[in-house]
Amino acid sequence: MKTVKYGLSALGLAIGMAATGVSMSVSAAEPTLAEADYEKAKLQYFQRCAGCHGTLRKGATGKNLEPKSTMKKGQKRLEKIIALGTEGGMNNFDDLFTKKEIANMATFIQMEPPVPPEMSLEQMRSHTKEYVAPKDYPTKPMHGLNWKNFFVVIERDAGTAAIIDGDTKKIITHIDTGYAVHVIKGTEHHKIDHAKDVGRFWYTIGRDGKVNKIDLWQTPDKMLVAETKMAYDARDIAVSGDGKYVIAGGYWPAHFVIMDAVTLNPLKVVSTRGYNTKGEFINEARVAAIYTSPLTSSFIVAVKETGQMLQVDYTDLDNLTITSIASAEFLHDGFFDPSGRYFQIAANASNKMVVIDTIERKLEAMIEVDALPHPGPGANWIDKECGPVGGTTHLGVGLVSVWGNDPMGHPDKAWKLCYEVETDGAGAFIRTHETSQYVWADQLKHPEPEVQQSVQVFDKDTHEIVKTIRVTTEPGKAALHMEFNNDGSEVWVSVWNRKDAKNPTGEIVVYDAKTLKELYRIKGLTTPTGKFNVHNRMNHKT
Amino acid sequence: MKTVKYGLSALGLAIGMAATGVSMSVSAAEPTLAEADYEKAKLQYFQRCAGCHGTLRKGATGKNLEPKSTMKKGQKRLEKIIALGTEGGMNNFDDLFTKKEIANMATFIQMEPPVPPEMSLEQMRSHTKEYVAPKDYPTKPMHGLNWKNFFVVIERDAGTAAIIDGDTKKIITHIDTGYAVHVIKGTEHHKIDHAKDVGRFWYTIGRDGKVNKIDLWQTPDKMLVAETKMAYDARDIAVSGDGKYVIAGGYWPAHFVIMDAVTLNPLKVVSTRGYNTKGEFINEARVAAIYTSPLTSSFIVAVKETGQMLQVDYTDLDNLTITSIASAEFLHDGFFDPSGRYFQIAANASNKMVVIDTIERKLEAMIEVDALPHPGPGANWIDKECGPVGGTTHLGVGLVSVWGNDPMGHPDKAWKLCYEVETDGAGAFIRTHETSQYVWADQLKHPEPEVQQSVQVFDKDTHEIVKTIRVTTEPGKAALHMEFNNDGSEVWVSVWNRKDAKNPTGEIVVYDAKTLKELYRIKGLTTPTGKFNVHNRMNHKT
Ligand code: DHE
Ligand code: DHE
Ligand code: HEC
Ligand code: HEC
Repeated sequence: MKTVKYGLSALGLAIGMAATGVSMSVSAAEPTLAEADYEKAKLQYFQRCAGCHGTLRKGATGKNLEPKSTMKKGQKRLEKIIALGTEGGMNNFDDLFTKKEIANMATFIQMEPPVPPEMSLEQMRSHTKEYVAPKDYPTKPMHGLNWKNFFVVIERDAGTAAIIDGDTKKIITHIDTGYAVHVIKGTEHHKIDHAKDVGRFWYTIGRDGKVNKIDLWQTPDKMLVAETKMAYDARDIAVSGDGKYVIAGGYWPAHFVIMDAVTLNPLKVVSTRGYNTKGEFINEARVAAIYTSPLTSSFIVAVKETGQMLQVDYTDLDNLTITSIASAEFLHDGFFDPSGRYFQIAANASNKMVVIDTIERKLEAMIEVDALPHPGPGANWIDKECGPVGGTTHLGVGLVSVWGNDPMGHPDKAWKLCYEVETDGAGAFIRTHETSQYVWADQLKHPEPEVQQSVQVFDKDTHEIVKTIRVTTEPGKAALHMEFNNDGSEVWVSVWNRKDAKNPTGEIVVYDAKTLKELYRIKGLTTPTGKFNVHNRMNHKT
Repeated sequence: MKTVKYGLSALGLAIGMAATGVSMSVSAAEPTLAEADYEKAKLQYFQRCAGCHGTLRKGATGKNLEPKSTMKKGQKRLEKIIALGTEGGMNNFDDLFTKKEIANMATFIQMEPPVPPEMSLEQMRSHTKEYVAPKDYPTKPMHGLNWKNFFVVIERDAGTAAIIDGDTKKIITHIDTGYAVHVIKGTEHHKIDHAKDVGRFWYTIGRDGKVNKIDLWQTPDKMLVAETKMAYDARDIAVSGDGKYVIAGGYWPAHFVIMDAVTLNPLKVVSTRGYNTKGEFINEARVAAIYTSPLTSSFIVAVKETGQMLQVDYTDLDNLTITSIASAEFLHDGFFDPSGRYFQIAANASNKMVVIDTIERKLEAMIEVDALPHPGPGANWIDKECGPVGGTTHLGVGLVSVWGNDPMGHPDKAWKLCYEVETDGAGAFIRTHETSQYVWADQLKHPEPEVQQSVQVFDKDTHEIVKTIRVTTEPGKAALHMEFNNDGSEVWVSVWNRKDAKNPTGEIVVYDAKTLKELYRIKGLTTPTGKFNVHNRMNHKT
């Protein structure tokens, strides 16, 4: 096997050459890997680590992992961190990687990060495929089912999306979406724009930047109707209020792409590379949350590393108007308040919730919260004292933070912490429903199985945890992500088979939203993570 | 002397590594230069070539000069092109460089281009200097002169700006501005915003990104009141209608910076890197023309390589709204129509004049013209047949192109070529005045001295050239850039001592605007290029 060295990074070199004018050289002391090991570590890094630490390893949710940081720690210490994780939010990987893979990863992150290539609009277009011609789309649902209570479910490691009938709990089909879909969004009701057949079309975004279009009116075997690719690495997607455009954001290249929602043909690409709020240039300025503003004809695009919230007007793509709202680094996941005017988003490594006013197109507030807020789909409800509130879980601490979000009705409470609820472990997703007395929080980030496999439920009035539900006890499995059904009578929780990720040994456990008792186990799912109820999502029930 | 090799470029390497995963190596066949020669060629390239070919040598006004292009031509052919220039717009450098410098330059451009470093807001701020405290600014002019007929004159290679009294033709002072100022702009009258003391403060932008503030009310020795630096390489600048902000654009880094017009402190930096109109990512997306829209509270920023015209709202820098108007590559220099609504700009290598509607914030038209349009300050006048028209010289051909620019009054003529006037040689600057019967065009780009040293004047009614004026006959000197005085009775033309650039052997020749006869020679100027009459510029007399 050939042993190769990867010496100087492109960017390090660029600066180095410009500043010193000295010729490059490959130092003999640098760590090396055999080519096959290097390629494997590169792929694993990209799939498992880049999301938090960045493709260029500049750090974001996780810390900087450039050689200047990692060389100081050394091989042994790095192996230990990767294997066991840390209290501060770093995952353990001893359940996913072999000893050798961990050792190679520790070496890999002491080498200069390779810089991935660009992607042009033409390259994206070469991936656009039509599976069903728009002229052959049905004019009414072909299956006679109550599609507005369907759940669209990510089967992460199977590369599929399952469509589950919420009425019967039957898995209707597994749609081939490709590698690790991260988010799926459908058309939604909008205040001023009107999409045809709201809730019918759903769009997936994969970690590999692949976009798929799903038609819920089709017969199950034909639900996948189109496909394209808009980046090498991506996380979020949204559909315009008029249903004409789909927008998706790239982690790499750092850009967002607006596509024709009928054909998925990429129409416009806009770079997000730029300056952070301190005025430092960021090459890897990744797009995290993307939403459609329910009250205005615009998209909301969160640029993680620059702390810029972009409000992108979609009425004229050739003369594209964007308001860049400076907030705080590192923007990640967000959700609208019940009025649809305010977007509430975690600037996670700044320990802040950022609030944007989409009517005035400006920063409304920044709320100081505990370590690494992460609301996932988020939750809004009414508090007896504070009035309308929003809440978030935290990646860094077992806590739910709750703040007032009604500046009109409750100006004294607005954008201030109302109360906090301690949970057993750090989590990623919070959820409730207007019909429910309870708020649900998962504990996905906790290293111990008992906690990671349990979700906690607290009462909206007493602020007390009323129940800790152990969703599974099987080793290698984690409980995460709650979604209510259409009328709010059930709560669905995913059991993610992280360890046995190639087999359909994951499940969704359905609970009675009132009694908190288990009702069903939907089996035969491979690594289910996020799930999206058509009725709730199309009607902004957050 | 140490011999060093500069092997692979940072960007080439980046792509290479990502695509092939192969280790870098420095090929033995590559051209090399001794370190001192390399550094000198690098500096000369940056000062003399990068403007047209790009710092990264990707090509713009000039062709691509990366090794993949230049290696094919070879040393001898490259030397010849650099020494003698070409018919297609490439300058001759045999008058500026020695034989050895030309040979080294030919070698240098066969080597990979070094990538220059970034610049943060903090770095910019470290260059901000106050020479006169704002509290010490005078409350009325301190010199009793008719400052509204002052000319602010660039003395390119002296690193100064001369202030010349238009009434007396006396040089009042030479202000130390640093290396190669490119453009100087002052506060202007605005339709909705109101600056204090319009026309009083002037701002220079150097090729090195340095910005200076000049106070024309000061005693001559104190006119330089503040300074900063916003890039390593820059070309244009503008002042907001309310006089509060100064904006300047970087060639490298590719960004624009908004500064406090009082202190010059940099407040906001926005990257212009992004996608061109074909959807290809451009790292070196340079800012060319920058103007203030006279009717709206916004700046106009032309991004050369991406073909994007940015209309930047300056009313809220923290929530910055920008409309990105896709037009054509490579945007360069422009001017407003007489109504102030339409901005007319050359997309030079696309052979187009692009027209932006600043009220609707959208593309109004694109006019096909001959090779490499370059209007410089531009010219608007009334044509008997076409009504209001605009005109441009061309870098690539001896021609003035004239188009209708009154879509309200003359819709059938608007944004169409009205007529063309052939001149003896390609030029860079056109100028007229509302009181004048004539339009003036220089022939700066023509290789032969007789032509390069002459400007041509044509009649607005007959469209015929009425006079060819040989401005100078001295070897190594060129005639360029015309500016009228305040009442339009005189035309000032620069004689640029390109060869003897270190000495004050340049001059400005003043002509009677009616008789076209020479009136004065203002001597003692070092390499005068652009000059700006206070009255005309503050009142949009273009
Ligand atoms: C930007 C982003 C969003 C959109 C937020 C919004 O719409 O407000 C999002 C949403 C999500 C959503 C949608 C939540 C919703 O209900 O709307 C889910 C289910 C989800 C499951 C996961 N995410 Fe996610 N996720 C990232 C990014 C994002 N995730 C990461 O960068 C991170 C931290 C690391 C990585 O390498 O990707 C990451 C890890 C995960 C997981 O490990 C999860 C649990 C499983 C998986 O798919 O890998 N993320
Ligand atoms: C972007 C830009 C502007 C602003 C246009 C506007 O406001 O509409 C401008 C304006 C100008 C103006 C302002 C014209 C005016 O009256 O408004 C002048 C005098 C000027 C003298 C020159 N320019 Fe200029 N100039 C460049 C860029 C620009 N020049 C280049 O990139 C280029 C082609 C090559 C380079 O290496 O810089 C270039 C070469 C020159 C010259 O060689 C000139 C003649 C002398 C010099 O300074 O080097 N440019
Ligand atoms: C879900 C987010 C997340 C993922 C995925 C993740 N990390 Fe981390 N990582 C973190 C956080 C947060 C920290 C800081 C932990 C702390 O301070 O205790 C961290 C810390 C580290 C550190 C210690 C750095 C230091 O300077 O202290 C190393 C090494 C590391 N991660 C490597 C990896 C590798 C390798 C992977 C993939 C195999 C990975 N991480 C995946 C979030 C993540
Ligand atoms: C004012 C603009 C301008 C400047 C300044 C300029 N060039 Fe050029 N250059 C051009 C143009 C335009 C062309 C294309 C000419 C043609 O096609 O005939 C060109 C062509 C060339 C070519 C031939 C490329 C080919 O593939 O045919 C070389 C080599 C070159 N330039 C080198 C340089 C060097 C070195 C400098 C500085 C010392 C420089 N240029 C400065 C505009 C410029």
